[in-house]
Amino acid sequence: VSDLAVGVDVGGTKVAAALVTREGAIVQTSRRPTTHTVTTPPGQATAVDILAAVTELIGERTDVPIGIGLPGMMTRRGVLAYAPNLPTANGGDFAALLNALRPGLVVSCANDADCAALAEHRLGAARGVDNFVMVTLGTGIGGGVVLDGKLVRGTNGFAGEIGHMVLDPQGPLCPCGARGCWERFASGAGIARLAREAAAAGRLPALVALRGGDAQSVRGEDVTTAAAEGSEEALAVIDEVAWWLARGVANLTAILDVGLVVLGGGLGDAADLLIPPARRALHGMLEGGDARPALRFERAQFAVEAGALGAAQLAFDAVQ
Amino acid sequence: VSDLAVGVDVGGTKVAAALVTREGAIVQTSRRPTTHTVTTPPGQATAVDILAAVTELIGERTDVPIGIGLPGMMTRRGVLAYAPNLPTANGGDFAALLNALRPGLVVSCANDADCAALAEHRLGAARGVDNFVMVTLGTGIGGGVVLDGKLVRGTNGFAGEIGHMVLDPQGPLCPCGARGCWERFASGAGIARLAREAAAAGRLPALVALRGGDAQSVRGEDVTTAAAEGSEEALAVIDEVAWWLARGVANLTAILDVGLVVLGGGLGDAADLLIPPARRALHGMLEGGDARPALRFERAQFAVEAGALGAAQLAFDAVQ
Repeated sequence: VSDLAVGVDVGGTKVAAALVTREGAIVQTSRRPTTHTVTTPPGQATAVDILAAVTELIGERTDVPIGIGLPGMMTRRGVLAYAPNLPTANGGDFAALLNALRPGLVVSCANDADCAALAEHRLGAARGVDNFVMVTLGTGIGGGVVLDGKLVRGTNGFAGEIGHMVLDPQGPLCPCGARGCWERFASGAGIARLAREAAAAGRLPALVALRGGDAQSVRGEDVTTAAAEGSEEALAVIDEVAWWLARGVANLTAILDVGLVVLGGGLGDAADLLIPPARRALHGMLEGGDARPALRFERAQFAVEAGALGAAQLAFDAVQ
Repeated sequence: VSDLAVGVDVGGTKVAAALVTREGAIVQTSRRPTTHTVTTPPGQATAVDILAAVTELIGERTDVPIGIGLPGMMTRRGVLAYAPNLPTANGGDFAALLNALRPGLVVSCANDADCAALAEHRLGAARGVDNFVMVTLGTGIGGGVVLDGKLVRGTNGFAGEIGHMVLDPQGPLCPCGARGCWERFASGAGIARLAREAAAAGRLPALVALRGGDAQSVRGEDVTTAAAEGSEEALAVIDEVAWWLARGVANLTAILDVGLVVLGGGLGDAADLLIPPARRALHGMLEGGDARPALRFERAQFAVEAGALGAAQLAFDAVQ
């Protein structure tokens, strides 16, 4: 039984790896940009990236287990079936690819948001909570659903694609092909879109002035930065995003009756801005009124490191 | 171990009981209208109804276990916490109420759609399927979620309120207080509403003529009857309802990746009309395209008897 594992978080822009103890302490990290090269078999270039990041941490040892969080729909067998942000890896079987590159490595794979859920469940904001949903805000919205203490995988392994719950069938087009997916409203892309809409409607005069009068160049970060500084016009956009965040959380609660929703991902301080108004909006959205105990809605303990930490937990599980 | 159980299905209009074998054969049934009387303790009048229905089947025996399906949010402890269609029973602890009336009765309680899910899982369309959602269409939409072979209860016991997933926040007001709940579009009430809208917009001329030219008096049943007879104008409304049905099913699939959705409830032949166009609409709504195996979407094996059959299974479980 190893006391160390490597957790790897693979994204569309970077591959980040961490050497981690069983208790979640990060000993060392490495990162590199993601290569987008079409290969046969699919995912070979990504596997080479992963191995390089791993080798930087543990050399050519094979007695340290490896966990990998991947950005897309993972089959129960561990194949990356659909990865819109890393299409060259579609169909990649990363345990097999890594083993072909370095025989003897013990490799486990999962969806990246599922890894984040595992990190929060074992080490973070959801310790001791049997029923919760992990919501990761980034460019889109990822999710991990834990019920009765176990990660929900679903029939194929594709459970947790909560960002593609449609909240408004007349809403903006999503790259997935549907209209009005949750992640079009409450995510990095959602903040950016609602910011542009507010700017075009004349509701962000100070931020538009900062951008030289061009409403279309107002960015999501402009809004979160100004909101953090107390700008009323920016806080109004944050309230709108928070309302949509709450709307999706309320839907998940109707279906699953989780007691806790953990908000994580790479949006950083935006999460702190969104949680208070989202909590206020949630009040009144949940069926049953006073008969239903309050839903807890908390920020994740871990930020960008959640994926690698959770992937390392996956690795420890594989060698237990 | 008893070879017989009584399953009771309590609704807002009737209390239906069935004496059932372990294999699901119905030996005898009884039914009576639901009494709506405010009592202390709450639910006392409903408990008297239930006991009368039970007594008609098994006299004063207490060696036959009783299962009860109730129309609302049930706590894990078995208390009916919120029942919009049976408000006099809000807060009722039916196991305790029945035991006060007839000491020694073994009583188990659950949400009625959860009972229907149990019936389909043990005896019906979902036998052998570990991950499925039961969707019951009636006036509203009820639900039961089974993952890894187990009914999902959630933190409080309130999981499965799928009809109150919001699909359009600008949509019609729901009695629950939200706007655009799924059950406002795809349910008995949804068919009725979309039928009135279509009639008012001049899209149902033949049915309006049948109702003496009054668009507002066109009913949901008019549409389902005409659609079953092949009326193009009625089938167009059915297609619209089916689209909304598919939209909700697609959301559940994004979140839970179930392999099967079972459509049941009291709408009878409407389900047969809705399933083919809903299947067509589903095609293309599910993220992942060809990477995702087809979702099965099937009619329930049981109709109105599903609640009592599932409640009886609950009763058998309690004495195993």
